[in-house]
Amino acid sequence: MSTGAQAVVDAGGAELTRIMDRVEQRMSELAVGHGPVLARHAGETISAGGKRLRPMLVCLAAGAPPPETDGLVRAAVAVELVHGATLVHDDVLDGSAMRRGRPTVVATGGRAAATATGDLLFSRAFAELAGGGSPESVRVLARASRELALGELTQREDAYRLDVTVERYLARCRLKTAVLFRAACELGALEAGGEPGALGAFGERIGLAFQILDDVLDVSGPPERTGKPRGTDLLDGTVTLPLILARERDPEIDLRGVRTTDEAAAVCDRIEATGALEEARCRAAELVAEAKLALPALPLRQREALELAADVMVERYA
Amino acid sequence: MSTGAQAVVDAGGAELTRIMDRVEQRMSELAVGHGPVLARHAGETISAGGKRLRPMLVCLAAGAPPPETDGLVRAAVAVELVHGATLVHDDVLDGSAMRRGRPTVVATGGRAAATATGDLLFSRAFAELAGGGSPESVRVLARASRELALGELTQREDAYRLDVTVERYLARCRLKTAVLFRAACELGALEAGGEPGALGAFGERIGLAFQILDDVLDVSGPPERTGKPRGTDLLDGTVTLPLILARERDPEIDLRGVRTTDEAAAVCDRIEATGALEEARCRAAELVAEAKLALPALPLRQREALELAADVMVERYA
Repeated sequence: MSTGAQAVVDAGGAELTRIMDRVEQRMSELAVGHGPVLARHAGETISAGGKRLRPMLVCLAAGAPPPETDGLVRAAVAVELVHGATLVHDDVLDGSAMRRGRPTVVATGGRAAATATGDLLFSRAFAELAGGGSPESVRVLARASRELALGELTQREDAYRLDVTVERYLARCRLKTAVLFRAACELGALEAGGEPGALGAFGERIGLAFQILDDVLDVSGPPERTGKPRGTDLLDGTVTLPLILARERDPEIDLRGVRTTDEAAAVCDRIEATGALEEARCRAAELVAEAKLALPALPLRQREALELAADVMVERYA
Repeated sequence: MSTGAQAVVDAGGAELTRIMDRVEQRMSELAVGHGPVLARHAGETISAGGKRLRPMLVCLAAGAPPPETDGLVRAAVAVELVHGATLVHDDVLDGSAMRRGRPTVVATGGRAAATATGDLLFSRAFAELAGGGSPESVRVLARASRELALGELTQREDAYRLDVTVERYLARCRLKTAVLFRAACELGALEAGGEPGALGAFGERIGLAFQILDDVLDVSGPPERTGKPRGTDLLDGTVTLPLILARERDPEIDLRGVRTTDEAAAVCDRIEATGALEEARCRAAELVAEAKLALPALPLRQREALELAADVMVERYA
């Protein structure tokens, strides 16, 4: 774990560690009992893991230390399951063979198994959240799920469109990524009996920063760290902030006609040479700063933990 | 409307007509507000309609006349949205161009739009149901959704497997179809404050009958009524009850190698010649009879309405 992520865990205390362990435990339990094929694919999706940033946000939005309630575990699990469901469906549409250095569900099980696995994870997410008995929480997650679907679609509509503006890019990032960070914070706040709005605004901004930095990473690599070749977005026709900013300085840069990873890497080099990556990183850092300013009055320890979590978003790509 | 379906509506009274109108109204409202592309596809999916059998079951399981509550409208809408979501995703996997005589979402919008539309309908379903405030209802629908995913997957695993037994076929029908009829009845019973179990057993049996008769219809046609060529299941490699029963009498019948609609129609003729369709229809009629026997003690008018609804499942294919 990075020192920043460790600092977040330290700020959350033994309570955070314990509740994150319960989240993992519960997710493992949910993978079983759906027949051998779905259990295997759902289990792989869940155990492939990633950084569990969203469940951690749920917990810290509820408090630092977080309250060790069943409801909080449910909310954290539900958010991560929706995240997993969207990844599995995205991989089907992209025909992606690898994610996080492992074969995708669509690669190992085929499109039918992957579509069913995504649907399963979606429905488990809502069942898990509803078990806590808060209709408001289910509404929050359903709204985010709807917007994630819209974001995924927007991205495909915008493929290969070099006239996508920064504003439209940010609107798409909000839909495809930031709404789930917002929902994570809102669910944590709701579970703690608090007002979800202000923490939601914090979550949305760090979600935007997260996506921008993810797009920077696609250009900068290195592949050893990201687990995928540089320029994967370019190969998919996805017009991201680094490309938009780079084209303001070097309008000849184009992603149309990019077919091989070597060609994509060459375009990445050219984007990097314009200084667009630095500018994109600055935009992300500004969003993180705004996120911190958006934090409402909170106990000092919780504020510090959330600020640290926001910094971790940046740190992982520094 | 058929005379049987009209009889069901008559049994439900003006209250049923009014509540089904509210279901339609609510579904139309839900189609808007998701951006133009999703709104269009979700709207087309919703308005394509079909017979609204599942919402009607939700209502009649709550009572005849049904209580005109918001919660009942929500439950009926949620079930139909889950049904729509699964159809949209199935069409993506099958690459189906037409459904109910209209172009599918995947045909008009492509795989990405169709996958996103299905995900949207799923999340709207749970948001709609959660708005009613019953965690138990959300659990019922989530369980059914999980089983639908499993059923779809089972069907694909079993493709072209001529050794599928009647038992395995029925287990698949339960998962891919009957669980949502069960959920419809359970949700209606829950909304009326009743015990969901016995009505769920009723719903499951008529759901099985419904699927068997759907499979009979794929063989018998006629295409003018079904809106699709005969033998579509054969072309997909789906081993259904008519084929299983026909092969007991004429083991040479095979669906491997069937590539064209003409070849499929020829196999349909051969299945029909064995008398397998009559036997399959009898199995469905037995299930409907069992369903009626499974009904718990109910007010006479509600019992009659549910029995009529069960008969309508059979009548539409008689």
